[in-house]
Amino acid sequence: MSDTPPAPKAPPKDPWDLPDVSDLVVGVLGGTGDQGRGLAHRFARVGQRVVIGSRTAERATAAAEEITADLAAPGAPDTAAAGEVTGADNAACARASDVVIVAVPWDGHRATLEGLRGDLAGKLVVDCVNPLGFDKHGAYALVPEEGSAAQQAAAILPDSRVTAAFHHLSAVLLRDPSVGAIDTDVLVLGDRRADCEIVQALAGRIEGMRGIYAGRLRNAHQVEALVANLISTNRRYKAHAGLRVTDL
Amino acid sequence: MSDTPPAPKAPPKDPWDLPDVSDLVVGVLGGTGDQGRGLAHRFARVGQRVVIGSRTAERATAAAEEITADLAAPGAPDTAAAGEVTGADNAACARASDVVIVAVPWDGHRATLEGLRGDLAGKLVVDCVNPLGFDKHGAYALVPEEGSAAQQAAAILPDSRVTAAFHHLSAVLLRDPSVGAIDTDVLVLGDRRADCEIVQALAGRIEGMRGIYAGRLRNAHQVEALVANLISTNRRYKAHAGLRVTDL
Repeated sequence: MSDTPPAPKAPPKDPWDLPDVSDLVVGVLGGTGDQGRGLAHRFARVGQRVVIGSRTAERATAAAEEITADLAAPGAPDTAAAGEVTGADNAACARASDVVIVAVPWDGHRATLEGLRGDLAGKLVVDCVNPLGFDKHGAYALVPEEGSAAQQAAAILPDSRVTAAFHHLSAVLLRDPSVGAIDTDVLVLGDRRADCEIVQALAGRIEGMRGIYAGRLRNAHQVEALVANLISTNRRYKAHAGLRVTDL
Repeated sequence: MSDTPPAPKAPPKDPWDLPDVSDLVVGVLGGTGDQGRGLAHRFARVGQRVVIGSRTAERATAAAEEITADLAAPGAPDTAAAGEVTGADNAACARASDVVIVAVPWDGHRATLEGLRGDLAGKLVVDCVNPLGFDKHGAYALVPEEGSAAQQAAAILPDSRVTAAFHHLSAVLLRDPSVGAIDTDVLVLGDRRADCEIVQALAGRIEGMRGIYAGRLRNAHQVEALVANLISTNRRYKAHAGLRVTDL
């Protein structure tokens, strides 16, 4: 593409004009963890087909069954509208999915992705991992040598379309079947607009949320690291803080 | 104070119980720049006494006169309630103020603070500087060797009480006399709770804003750097984006 002349300038595209993503299969690597389960629950709840990934298919299947049960819990919406949730090992999860959310613990991030390079080729990958350390003063940001977890994913997965999103969501709220709309936006980062728009559209399907474009992958570190601040805020206010972008 | 033993554990304090700060004099170093002028305008507007600081007293005084004129512009609130705004060179601004906001450009940050170490001794310093670089892809975060602008300030000013806040505010909205409430929260960082609470209370005086505790200074970098993301968001949505912390 680099030798084609620049296209004539098109009129600005409406940033709220996002694609229909309802038919996409969403995979969640690390889907047996709190954040992964919570996201899987939210996507299934709005009718998305979801595949939970874990190191073993058995654990993934057990988590998928629990999520399916949660979707039928009191307070949950019409279960006839819920998407099917199944489990698979991480490689099969990646291959079966159109969009693959990376929700593994930070200390397994590199090894997990290195092992899935082929399975994730061509896939839209959404990294939601927050590299954090903890000590007696609370959480603090770790700085991956690539700059951020998302940039590490992009470096490991040259044949995937890597984006970053879903960093700031409370796993407690995501997983609670009695919680309807969650009052927060989702910051979406990536270097290709079409990929970001798919992720933005997915985020916008979750009750209460909007997917907001928030820059290129090189600016992912601060979005990941901001979770350390939200942890401090949550402790002070005894809250499950989210972030809403104003004036949009 | 450092040789007193730790107090016995008190019951948790209401995080919304903040001090009365209406009598504090607010200085703004770099108060002739867009962000500094905007903050000065907002504080004067709610009755705070404000001292604009600049390298020369003449430029500071000129800016103070412009802000005073803006406070009488159509759309501005009752000017009888507005605080007095005066100008001084940076050193005199620091000495005259209880709370000193550092709103200088990043490339003058270190030298300005090194020159004011004595003038700022004992003062509550609020760093709002965002170290950013710009290229054809937009803004990106710079990483100061101390970790953040706020930590650099703390390193240069061992005798001051350094906090960080007011990073994400739109100078355009701050400066516009016809804009009333601004729909955003202010993230406040610092290592001493009492100092943070003064800054939170000041932020909360500005129409539309709340001052929200968001962690220790070691977690300031990502808050400063997040401005790069907001710049991308503003370009995409043609907005003056702010951030509201939800569930609080």
